[in-house]
Amino acid sequence: MTARLFLPDVLLFAGEPRAGWALLAREGRIGAVGPAAELLARYPRAARVPLPGMALTPGTVNAHSHSFQSLWRGLGDDLPFPRWRDVLYRLAPRLDEEGAYTGALFAFAEMLLRGVTTVCDFFYLHHGGNERALAVAQAARAVGIRLVLARAMMDWPAAPRAFRETPEQAVDNTRALAAALQGDPLVSVIPAPHSPHAASAAMVRAGALLAAELDTPWHVHVAEAPYEGEETRRRTGLGPLAWIAALGVLDRRVRVVHGVWLDREEIWSLARVGGGLVHCPGANLFLGDGVAPLALYRRAGVTIALGCDSGAANNRLSVFDEMRLAAVLQKGLSGRADAVTALEVYHWGTRNGAHATGLPVGELAPGRYADLVALDRHDLSLQPAHNLLHNLVYAMQPTAIRHVWVHGEPVVRDGRLVRVPEEQIRERVERLIRPWRPGPSPC
Amino acid sequence: MTARLFLPDVLLFAGEPRAGWALLAREGRIGAVGPAAELLARYPRAARVPLPGMALTPGTVNAHSHSFQSLWRGLGDDLPFPRWRDVLYRLAPRLDEEGAYTGALFAFAEMLLRGVTTVCDFFYLHHGGNERALAVAQAARAVGIRLVLARAMMDWPAAPRAFRETPEQAVDNTRALAAALQGDPLVSVIPAPHSPHAASAAMVRAGALLAAELDTPWHVHVAEAPYEGEETRRRTGLGPLAWIAALGVLDRRVRVVHGVWLDREEIWSLARVGGGLVHCPGANLFLGDGVAPLALYRRAGVTIALGCDSGAANNRLSVFDEMRLAAVLQKGLSGRADAVTALEVYHWGTRNGAHATGLPVGELAPGRYADLVALDRHDLSLQPAHNLLHNLVYAMQPTAIRHVWVHGEPVVRDGRLVRVPEEQIRERVERLIRPWRPGPSPC
Repeated sequence: MTARLFLPDVLLFAGEPRAGWALLAREGRIGAVGPAAELLARYPRAARVPLPGMALTPGTVNAHSHSFQSLWRGLGDDLPFPRWRDVLYRLAPRLDEEGAYTGALFAFAEMLLRGVTTVCDFFYLHHGGNERALAVAQAARAVGIRLVLARAMMDWPAAPRAFRETPEQAVDNTRALAAALQGDPLVSVIPAPHSPHAASAAMVRAGALLAAELDTPWHVHVAEAPYEGEETRRRTGLGPLAWIAALGVLDRRVRVVHGVWLDREEIWSLARVGGGLVHCPGANLFLGDGVAPLALYRRAGVTIALGCDSGAANNRLSVFDEMRLAAVLQKGLSGRADAVTALEVYHWGTRNGAHATGLPVGELAPGRYADLVALDRHDLSLQPAHNLLHNLVYAMQPTAIRHVWVHGEPVVRDGRLVRVPEEQIRERVERLIRPWRPGPSPC
Repeated sequence: MTARLFLPDVLLFAGEPRAGWALLAREGRIGAVGPAAELLARYPRAARVPLPGMALTPGTVNAHSHSFQSLWRGLGDDLPFPRWRDVLYRLAPRLDEEGAYTGALFAFAEMLLRGVTTVCDFFYLHHGGNERALAVAQAARAVGIRLVLARAMMDWPAAPRAFRETPEQAVDNTRALAAALQGDPLVSVIPAPHSPHAASAAMVRAGALLAAELDTPWHVHVAEAPYEGEETRRRTGLGPLAWIAALGVLDRRVRVVHGVWLDREEIWSLARVGGGLVHCPGANLFLGDGVAPLALYRRAGVTIALGCDSGAANNRLSVFDEMRLAAVLQKGLSGRADAVTALEVYHWGTRNGAHATGLPVGELAPGRYADLVALDRHDLSLQPAHNLLHNLVYAMQPTAIRHVWVHGEPVVRDGRLVRVPEEQIRERVERLIRPWRPGPSPC
C-alpha cells in the first residue's frame, strides 16, 4: 500500500475547519495531519490525491444496523410494532447465505454512498452457526465498508428458532466467528446479547464476559419501547438497565442501543461505569417508540453515538441525516434552539463511534483509520460558505458526498461505488425478493 | 408550445402507482393521463418524452418560504430565537434588488433540485415599494419555478423600517404588484398580513379583504412560538387565532402558517371556515418552537400543506424531507407507528398545495399544471421495489431526483439546473455575502 497525501481545500479537524490542511494515509491509518506545505515537504514521495473544491471529513460511524432488513424496506411501514415485526419474522428465517450477503451488500452500498465508513451490524440470523454472519463480512469486504459484526445472542423462546441458541452455543459460535475473522483489517466481532426481553440472565452475563475475554465493547438493545421496561419490571421488579446492573455485568464495555425509556437512576448508573448510548432517533420515531431523553444522558456524561438502525425501521441509512434529526429533535422538544450544537451532534456521528465500536475511527487524527469523506463544497446544499460545519449538519444533502475512502482505499468516486456496480446490487436484490411478491408487477 | 407525451415506467396517480401510464402536457397544463397505449393512439403528433426506469410524480409544493434568508444559512444556527432574529434583522434591510434577486435565485434553484415546483414566498423586504418583490419574481422566471408571491403586510413598530407600511400603503402596493404580474403564467400574488404580533387589526383586516378582492388565499404566521400567543392574550384577552376571528375575517381564504400553539377551539374554528394549515415541522423544531398538534388538526378536518420555511430556519429546502419528518414526528410523539400514513403526508406535500396556494397544482390530473418530477427508480434509496410510495416518503434521497418540469417545460435535467448554471448562482451568492464577513478566508 502506497502512502497517499490527500489535499482538500479544507479539512475538518475535531470539527474545526482548517483551510489548506492535508492528510497522509498509509497502511490504512492516518499518519499525519497538518498544513499542506508542511506535509508536502515531509512526504515528497507520497502519491498525491488533489481534492480541489472539496472539504475532507471523517467518515461517519453507523453504530446500530440490521443490514439484512433493508430487503424489507417498504413492506412494514405504517404498521403497529407487533405487525411490523410479524412482517419481518415471517420471512427472515428463510434467508440463506446468499440472502444475508445480498441484504448486507445492498445496505452497506447505500451507507457508503451516504458517507458511512464504519457500520456495527447487529446480526441474528444464525441457524446455529456462522455461515450467514461470514456472508455479511464477505459483503462488507466486497463493497469496502468497515464492519463491526455485533453477533447477537438470543434465547427468547418466542423468537423464531433460527435466531435462538443456548448461552453455550452463542459463546462458542461468537468465539469461533471472532477467531475466523481475526486479522481482517476491515472486520471485527463483538458480542451482542439481544435485549432484556430476548436474552436470559445467563445469556446477558455470557455476552458481557465474552466481551471482556475478547477485549471489545458489547451491545444490547435496551428500553426501545415502553412495553419492554414494563415487562422487565413485571418479571423482575427492576427496570431493564437496573436488571442488567443487578446481574453484576454493567461495565465500561456496555453500549445501550436505543435507551428511550430508561429512568434517571439507570442513566446515571450507565454513566458511572463509563458505558455508552447508541441513539437511533430516526428508527425510534418511525416505530412510534418516542425520543430518548438525551438531556439526561448528556448531563450524566454518557458518551453518545448514532445508529440508523435498519432500512425497514427508519428507513434511511445516513448518519448525516441522524445527526440533523438528533439535533432538531432536542431543540424542538426542549423549546430551546440552543439545546445542542452542530458540533456536538457531529461528534456523536463521528468520533464517538470509536467508543461505540472500540475502533480508532471517526476523527482525522494520527493513528486513526483513514476513513474519509470528501464533500463538494460547491454543492448548493453547502452554500453559502458562512459555516461549513453548520451546513454539513443542518443543510447538507447527499448530493454533496463525492468521494469516500475506507482504510485509505477508494470505495466511492464521484458519487458512485468503486468496487461493485450499483446495477449489479439492484438486480441481485430484485432476483432475491421476486418470489416474496404475491401480485404481478412491482412498483 | 408543443404538446408533450411523458412516458415513464410508472406514474403516481393520486398517490397510486400506475405501471405503463403516460401523461400529456400542453400549454402548461396536463391534458390527459392514462395507459400509454391509449394516449399514444389519441395523441400521435405529440412530442414523446421517453422516461425508461423513471417514476413520475407531481412536483411538490413548498407552501412557506422566505427565499432571501437562504443567504443567512449557517449564521444563526444554535442560537436562541431573539438572537437568531437579530442576526437576520441586522443585515436584511440592507439587501437591495440585486440581493433579493440573488437570494431568491439561490433558494429557488435548490428547491427545484429537490423536487419543489411551486413555492409560496412570504416576502417582506419592501422599502415601501415593489422593486425587490419584482426581483424575486424575476428570479423565479430565471430558474423556472412556479411562484406565489405572498406579499407581507407588516406595521409592527419594532420591525425594521424597511419592512413596515401603513395598511393603506400595503394594500396599494400589493394591488399594484398583483396588477404588474397579472397574466404571468408562473407568478401570482397573494396578501400576507405578517402575524398577530407584527400586523395590527387594521392590517390583518386589510389583508383579508384584499384576498377577497383578488380572489386568492391569504397567509398569516400564527402561533409559531409560545410567546406569541401569550403576548396576544395579554394584549387582547384572546388567543392569536381567536383574535383574528374576533376581527371578523376568519374566512375560507385564510392559511395559518405554523399554528404550533393554537388551542382546540381555535383549530376547530379554522376547520369550520374551511381554512388551511401550512405545517413547517423542520423549522418548528430547528427554532425550538415545538411540534404542531396535527392530530387535532386532522380530527377537525383542516387541510394541511407543508412548508420548508427558510434556509436559515430549517435549513433544508426539500418538501420530500418535510413529508418524512412530519410523518415520523407524529408516529414517534404519539407512540403509534400507524398514526399517519405515507399516503397522507404525500398528499400534504403535493395536492394539498392547491388549497394552500389557490392554484391547480400537486396532482397528475387533467387541468392541473404540468409540474412534474421524474425519479430514478433504480436509485438505491428507492430499492427494493416493494412499495414506491413508501420508499418515496420514508427512504428517498435527492440523488433519486433526475428531471423536473414546470408548466410542462424542463427546468432540471439529470440532476442539474437547465436554465442557469449552478456555478453562476454560487459565484453570485459568494460575491454578495463576501462583504458580510469579518474574518479572512471562508470555510
